[in-house]
Amino acid sequence: MYDVAVIGAGPAGLSAAITLRMRNISCVVVSPKAKSGWLYKANEILNYPGMPKIGGEKLLHAFSEQALSLGAEVHSGLVRQILFSGGAFMLLADDHIIEAKALILAMGAARPKLLDGEEALVGNGVSYCATCDGMLYRGKKIAVLSAYAHGVEEANFLATLANELDYYPLQKHELSGLDPRAAVIPTIPQKLKKENGKIDVESIPYDGCFILRPAVSLTQLLQGLTLAEGFIPVNRRMETNLPGVYAAGDCTGQPLQIAKAVGEGNIAAICAAEYLQQLSASNR
Amino acid sequence: MYDVAVIGAGPAGLSAAITLRMRNISCVVVSPKAKSGWLYKANEILNYPGMPKIGGEKLLHAFSEQALSLGAEVHSGLVRQILFSGGAFMLLADDHIIEAKALILAMGAARPKLLDGEEALVGNGVSYCATCDGMLYRGKKIAVLSAYAHGVEEANFLATLANELDYYPLQKHELSGLDPRAAVIPTIPQKLKKENGKIDVESIPYDGCFILRPAVSLTQLLQGLTLAEGFIPVNRRMETNLPGVYAAGDCTGQPLQIAKAVGEGNIAAICAAEYLQQLSASNR
Repeated sequence: MYDVAVIGAGPAGLSAAITLRMRNISCVVVSPKAKSGWLYKANEILNYPGMPKIGGEKLLHAFSEQALSLGAEVHSGLVRQILFSGGAFMLLADDHIIEAKALILAMGAARPKLLDGEEALVGNGVSYCATCDGMLYRGKKIAVLSAYAHGVEEANFLATLANELDYYPLQKHELSGLDPRAAVIPTIPQKLKKENGKIDVESIPYDGCFILRPAVSLTQLLQGLTLAEGFIPVNRRMETNLPGVYAAGDCTGQPLQIAKAVGEGNIAAICAAEYLQQLSASNR
Repeated sequence: MYDVAVIGAGPAGLSAAITLRMRNISCVVVSPKAKSGWLYKANEILNYPGMPKIGGEKLLHAFSEQALSLGAEVHSGLVRQILFSGGAFMLLADDHIIEAKALILAMGAARPKLLDGEEALVGNGVSYCATCDGMLYRGKKIAVLSAYAHGVEEANFLATLANELDYYPLQKHELSGLDPRAAVIPTIPQKLKKENGKIDVESIPYDGCFILRPAVSLTQLLQGLTLAEGFIPVNRRMETNLPGVYAAGDCTGQPLQIAKAVGEGNIAAICAAEYLQQLSASNR
């Protein structure tokens, strides 16, 4: 059980981790390993104070080295869902469960483009997490819509449960490891609907539909989290509407800037530290 | 006339200047030259993201070099008062007047300790600015209470006007250049009061009392600026209660952290840029 789980290893998340460690608070930074994202690719950043004309990769490396050297832990994985249970947050990060007393959401502004009809069907036949929901479709017919290679692993697990499994690559990726029980369908679905209790994908009815993308829609991440125009509203203490849940960086909205993200990560860390202090006082 | 005047050359002010220049907005950073302040003296800063274990002086130098190289201007001087007139802000910085269309307040959290009774008498016999108010006391008896050497220059100007001038050093400083018409009184006043229309300082009645310190009380800086517990309340856009006036860094309150200040300076710059755009659109 960590004191704080930080979701996202960009400027906001790493700044938060650095300041949490300065306060001697245990923390884990959870983020997909992928070396991608706009900042990683940025050739030259001019307005991060103190480090003029630095490349994005180098800047991120400096941030993460600093966080690691102060004792922050890093876990590679995409957080698909967060549950609150028994006084703790449980993060489902690929196949791992990570527990923490408080959360700092710092996953940036990148959002997946959803399919038509997708959002309305979540929890009603559409799922983002094979580990969480696979057993619901034991012996049934499943569609896996996947935008990236990780979907192959998830499909292979689902293939052990399903009676029939169709795999739709939403984007081109390596399929050689796919379980032979899965059939690859080369069309790209544009919309989903429910008909006669089944999920209709390209006019084929399925009992369940798993959608796997390298990013998670905020609407699915954490139940009860208030959103506004795709961003997470926060106050000056970086508090979201949920106790113990802070947000920082691009996911809180404009301006999408490194300095702003670093500042918000710092504030979120300090306010999360205060929250933990109150929590421990009230448990005494 | 500058687009933006930034008051304070700490992390918030310099971060603001850097981002203003990235938007090609003319700006001047106004700050006392003094190489002092807690950050300047900090031996090692551990949690400014990207620059671990850096000394405060080196960090400030990196910030200011970056701002200068992007074209920010710097003016040495203590801003004693800001007036809004004819659609522009006028900053009285020692003996200079600087004009700007928008303001970013980033003067840190250091505040002078006021004398008992001082605040109630400002504008009613007590002044912080010899240039502004000296003529009101022509031929009168004046007290100058000064915490630093700059007070000698101000007193010398006032001595050319006054009939009688007493100089009270609030802290030890060089007095050799003081006009011989000024009498040095070696006691340190603790309180001020008004009696029979005169300002009573150590039981001596004066027509006017000038108080000179190397920092300015926020309550006197800018008329109409809302304060709360000694800080400047801002919203998430770093807007104060006054249009065109933004604040960033320690002067906006806790946490008093470099990363927070840098982030707020960045946001203030971007929001001030938007304000200028609207201003120029409405003037078209």
